[in-house]
Amino acid sequence: MPSRKKKEEPIILITNDDGVTAPGIQSLVEAVRGLGKIVVVAPDKPQSGMGHAITIGSPLRLHPVQLYEGIEAYGCTGTPVDCVKLAVDKVLHRKPDICLSGINHGANHSINVIYSGTMSAAVEAAIESIPSIGFSLLDYSIEADFTAAAHYARIITEMVLSKKQDKHLVLNVNIPAVPKDQIKGIKLCRQAYAKYQEDFLERQDPHGRRYYWLTGEFLNFDKGRDTDVWTLQNNYVSVVPVQFDLTNYVLKAKLEKSWKLDAKKR
Amino acid sequence: MPSRKKKEEPIILITNDDGVTAPGIQSLVEAVRGLGKIVVVAPDKPQSGMGHAITIGSPLRLHPVQLYEGIEAYGCTGTPVDCVKLAVDKVLHRKPDICLSGINHGANHSINVIYSGTMSAAVEAAIESIPSIGFSLLDYSIEADFTAAAHYARIITEMVLSKKQDKHLVLNVNIPAVPKDQIKGIKLCRQAYAKYQEDFLERQDPHGRRYYWLTGEFLNFDKGRDTDVWTLQNNYVSVVPVQFDLTNYVLKAKLEKSWKLDAKKR
Repeated sequence: MPSRKKKEEPIILITNDDGVTAPGIQSLVEAVRGLGKIVVVAPDKPQSGMGHAITIGSPLRLHPVQLYEGIEAYGCTGTPVDCVKLAVDKVLHRKPDICLSGINHGANHSINVIYSGTMSAAVEAAIESIPSIGFSLLDYSIEADFTAAAHYARIITEMVLSKKQDKHLVLNVNIPAVPKDQIKGIKLCRQAYAKYQEDFLERQDPHGRRYYWLTGEFLNFDKGRDTDVWTLQNNYVSVVPVQFDLTNYVLKAKLEKSWKLDAKKR
Repeated sequence: MPSRKKKEEPIILITNDDGVTAPGIQSLVEAVRGLGKIVVVAPDKPQSGMGHAITIGSPLRLHPVQLYEGIEAYGCTGTPVDCVKLAVDKVLHRKPDICLSGINHGANHSINVIYSGTMSAAVEAAIESIPSIGFSLLDYSIEADFTAAAHYARIITEMVLSKKQDKHLVLNVNIPAVPKDQIKGIKLCRQAYAKYQEDFLERQDPHGRRYYWLTGEFLNFDKGRDTDVWTLQNNYVSVVPVQFDLTNYVLKAKLEKSWKLDAKKR
């Protein structure tokens, strides 16, 4: 009888947008230790709010860093999305089995998914047919307590690794900033229509010229109880499955009726 | 009898990602002249591939520029998304009636919508409840011929301005790089699953250290005849209505069945 083929250890790519030395990514590495072969490729400086930016006009560099015993890790000069692309092509030389991004210092629920470097890295992996998860803790502090976030990061990573997933699977996971024993469980939900109301702070430099700082108040326009915002306010971990087909099919159908484009050539 | 109230002129905000001096934005301004009061707020340098990036860690500045007779125009030190936010809050002090972005030098069909600063500016406007349109010409050249693109930009802008639209309407319009008389018309379509296959070019600096340039081959995995890629290959102008609710509802329903989260508290 042929010997049973030993199942290969999954390769876990870890990245973030707060930078390779952030406490959040360190918590994530420790959270998933033992679930596979971990490789870290993350920005060498904070890249919050970089969204899905890529570096076109300048080259990228990778620097090996010694942060975790027994784990290959690199700082990259680019954006979170650059990190994923470069990790696949030049570090791993293959697709990892899963990509984990975070744990972000601060919320990435509702519209934040679109500005977030953490989530954009996860979405980039999913575009490349790598199942991926972005994790964010609702606490911006550098000294945030990642205990509960790390606990749920491990549980959800195990759930995703435990069976074959949709190859474009990407989950946006947020963890409320409360002690672990106050968290009621995990809920699948949808992205709330909640966003920042911009209000730039205007100042003058010593030469009398104006400059502007982005500030804003967070407003929730969405009263649904199936949203990530509601879920987090009620002390559940929120999980929003995310897509990168941005086609608005409902609006497409509406416009097809009202525009009647086939009737004439312009 | 009271006199009929004169309809106010719509305010048209114009931005892009190639920078305020790019030929593409100049073509767009001229294309829509006369349709309303135009105000230009665009990056003061190229910002291609910036996606939905916003500037958090540094302040922004606005510089008035004299580029178009009778038109208020500014260069902004930030990203395309910053331009929209700053224009609404500090230049217009109100929402414009429409936001136009482009005309981009190069394609923004298929997955490019997610990397594109042009489209991210348009999406940002839609998040702010400003109907918006991003225009891109399938020609990267600085000397591209914008005649056909400008013609269709005006037609589509008039169509959108002619009646009340969904307040979150955002259209991704691409124009094939062929002479105007070869364009067969306008088609509503969906985003193709087509993307770049990354392949970083590896070089060494004079100190023997490696660096990497992002390159890649464009691959279309989507055989549908209702996609933007098909539409453009067949010499139609492609119009994809875009959404910013990134929830993957199909995957959400699947996971609700397979995860059975309510059964236990973790």
